[in-house]
Amino acid sequence: MFRQTYSSSLLEDAVDSFASLPGIGRKTALRLALHILQEPEANVEKFASSLLNFRTQVQYCPQCGIITDDGECPICNDRKRDRSIVCVVESFRDVLSIENTGSYHGLYHILGGIISPLDGVGPGDLRIASLLQRCTDGEIREVVLALSTGMEGETTSFYLYRQLANLSIAVSTIARGVAFGDDLEYTDELTLGKAIENRRPFKI
Amino acid sequence: MFRQTYSSSLLEDAVDSFASLPGIGRKTALRLALHILQEPEANVEKFASSLLNFRTQVQYCPQCGIITDDGECPICNDRKRDRSIVCVVESFRDVLSIENTGSYHGLYHILGGIISPLDGVGPGDLRIASLLQRCTDGEIREVVLALSTGMEGETTSFYLYRQLANLSIAVSTIARGVAFGDDLEYTDELTLGKAIENRRPFKI
Repeated sequence: MFRQTYSSSLLEDAVDSFASLPGIGRKTALRLALHILQEPEANVEKFASSLLNFRTQVQYCPQCGIITDDGECPICNDRKRDRSIVCVVESFRDVLSIENTGSYHGLYHILGGIISPLDGVGPGDLRIASLLQRCTDGEIREVVLALSTGMEGETTSFYLYRQLANLSIAVSTIARGVAFGDDLEYTDELTLGKAIENRRPFKI
Repeated sequence: MFRQTYSSSLLEDAVDSFASLPGIGRKTALRLALHILQEPEANVEKFASSLLNFRTQVQYCPQCGIITDDGECPICNDRKRDRSIVCVVESFRDVLSIENTGSYHGLYHILGGIISPLDGVGPGDLRIASLLQRCTDGEIREVVLALSTGMEGETTSFYLYRQLANLSIAVSTIARGVAFGDDLEYTDELTLGKAIENRRPFKI
């Protein structure tokens, strides 16, 4: 009885909770649970309530879908950003990645996934209607598709491209190529082939 | 503003909470926080309350110090275990490690740390008095010291040995030597030297 379970059902529950998180095994979960014991009670209360508050009170920007506290997100609200260009991504994490580059100054639109018949995700399950709605308002001149490569991402990109074709909006996708610091030797053929096809004039 | 912080203070708090755990950086913390969003609210509530309950309601076995729900722990309560032998360890995790071996059938005594003048931990800060009290009751015939090696562990072992010397109790320490699967080539000299000193008759 003592081998797999612990001497306390409270500890058991705490370990189960941590172990339910992605990428956290039972050994790490035990370490985290025992760490909790050494924290002041107030800290643990704050920990628990911050997660619960986040889960229950989270809001999404009605325009782009970014996680926000209340109403429009800081990006849609930022009047300094280029409102004529919208970057379409799958998730909020993609927004953070692109923001981290500091190279993009337009708006975003989070789809909430990609079309994936195998997982039962169709166009109707994604924030596509609201994207098209935004695009018919006339302010947007370019849509940048920044979806993942692979069958499902390409399918979704193609679907969006077809939907946007009737509107007079430029549709682009982010460049694919050999990453900085990557050896040609270890780059897959598809990427390297496309990188050669899409070569650009050399600039100093 | 969007670079280091996020678009939502709720998200910010949740990420801060996860990142306060040992071994979890801000990138993992973000991943965990966004995972929380995809869980049903009831699961997140259960998660939060399991940690809080554990922290506020945890109890320790009055005899050995093991984490328990209520009163004596399952080990001290287990009448099949050998009550004449007590293994002295630093922490609850050491108990779990020893229990996992399946090789020990006696009782435990958790010190709650080791003597460490640099960290301001003296004998009075550890559960040493209760160990001596247990040992004077007459039932215990052997104390196994299973503390960490190194200056502080050795000091603590020596201190306990001196304290136990007046009582007619055998004091032993766990064997140190070359671990199974370890190459001699990569074993440190101290360990290998002690392993040769403490060699044992070969048994088939």
